[in-house]
Amino acid sequence: MRFKSHYVADFSDRNPQPITDKLFSERWSPRAFKNTDIPSVALEAILDAARWSPSCFNEQPWQFITASNTPGGRFEEFLSLLVDANQHWAKTASVLGFIVSKRHFDHNQQENSTATFDCGAAWMAMTLQARLFGLFTHSMAGMHYDEAYSSLKVDASTHQIICAFALGVMDSADSLPEPLQRKEKPSPRKPLTQIWQHY
Amino acid sequence: MRFKSHYVADFSDRNPQPITDKLFSERWSPRAFKNTDIPSVALEAILDAARWSPSCFNEQPWQFITASNTPGGRFEEFLSLLVDANQHWAKTASVLGFIVSKRHFDHNQQENSTATFDCGAAWMAMTLQARLFGLFTHSMAGMHYDEAYSSLKVDASTHQIICAFALGVMDSADSLPEPLQRKEKPSPRKPLTQIWQHY
Repeated sequence: MRFKSHYVADFSDRNPQPITDKLFSERWSPRAFKNTDIPSVALEAILDAARWSPSCFNEQPWQFITASNTPGGRFEEFLSLLVDANQHWAKTASVLGFIVSKRHFDHNQQENSTATFDCGAAWMAMTLQARLFGLFTHSMAGMHYDEAYSSLKVDASTHQIICAFALGVMDSADSLPEPLQRKEKPSPRKPLTQIWQHY
Repeated sequence: MRFKSHYVADFSDRNPQPITDKLFSERWSPRAFKNTDIPSVALEAILDAARWSPSCFNEQPWQFITASNTPGGRFEEFLSLLVDANQHWAKTASVLGFIVSKRHFDHNQQENSTATFDCGAAWMAMTLQARLFGLFTHSMAGMHYDEAYSSLKVDASTHQIICAFALGVMDSADSLPEPLQRKEKPSPRKPLTQIWQHY
C-alpha cells in the first residue's frame, strides 16, 4: 500500500545522525492535505499499529474515534469541534480523529499516571505506520473541548480527550491559505546534546 | 547496523491486521537481555529518532539520561534507582535510561499539558529505531522516585521523571530467574474494535 503525493517536502535543513532511519527524520506534520480515499485495509493497519504499543500493565488506555472525509459520515461534525485556525487546513484531510485516554487502571481503579504517555507511544506508532504507507499525520490540541466531550460522548470523569489529529496525503503548500503557506515546512530540532546526557 | 539475538520471540499468538508492518506487531518488552556493547553510532541514532518526534509548539519537552552497562560509568548507580523487581532483570541490559519531561512551555511558561504525551511519542520513536537495529526496549514505572530525582539532579518543580527504560539485545527466557521465565512472552492486545470507533 503506497499513497503517492505530487509534492515532496524539503527535509534538507534537517540534520539527522548518520544512521537514523528516514522514517523518523522525514516525518513531519503538514497542514496541506489533499483529500484522498484511504481504503479500510490501510486505515485498519494504521490503527492496528497503535494497538500493539506498550503500556503500563498492558492496560492499553487508548481509544481512537475517527471519521473519513466522505459524504454521509461525521467528518463535518468532527471538523466543527476544532478551533477555526485548525479547521482552515484540516478540512482537506482524509480522516479526522480524536485520541482519548482512560484515567484509571482497569485492574485496580487507581489513577493511571502513565496513560497519556502510553497514548503518546500509540500515537507515534499510528503515525509511523501511516508514513510507511506514504501518508502524514498532524495532531492538534486546539479544539472546543466541551463540545468535543459532548459530541464524542466521552465521560470526562473516566476519560480524557488528549488531542485531535488529521491523517492524509500531503498536498502542495500552494493549496493553503496565504498566511499558512509560509509556515508549511518541516521544523528543526534542538541539538541531540541538549536533550540527552549519556554516561 | 543489525544486532543478532540467538533467541527468537514467538509472536504467533498475536493477530495483527493483514498489512500492519511487523515493526509494530513484533515489538515487545522483554526482560531477558544479554549485555552487548551498542556502538555510539547506533545509540546516537536511537536517541536521534526520538529527537525528530512531534510535540506541541515543537517544544521538545523530552530529556533522556542514559548509562551504558560498561565498567566506570553510572550503570550500577542507575540500576540501584529501580525497584528490586526491575533490578533482577534490568541488570543485563546494554543501556539503562530515564525519560524526563519539562513541565512548562519555554515560550510562555504555562503548564504544558501535552508534555508527557509528547514524551510517549518520542519514546516510541526510540523504541522503533532500536527495533530496526534488532534491539528491544522495556520501560519501567517501578523506581525509587525520590532517589532518582536526587541522583539524576532533576528539579521536580520544573521537570518530571516519567519512567526508566532498558535497551538491549534479547536473550533466552532461560537466562531469567525462574519466576520471571513464565511471564517472558509477547503480550496480547484488546481487539481493534474495542479501541477504535470509525464513522
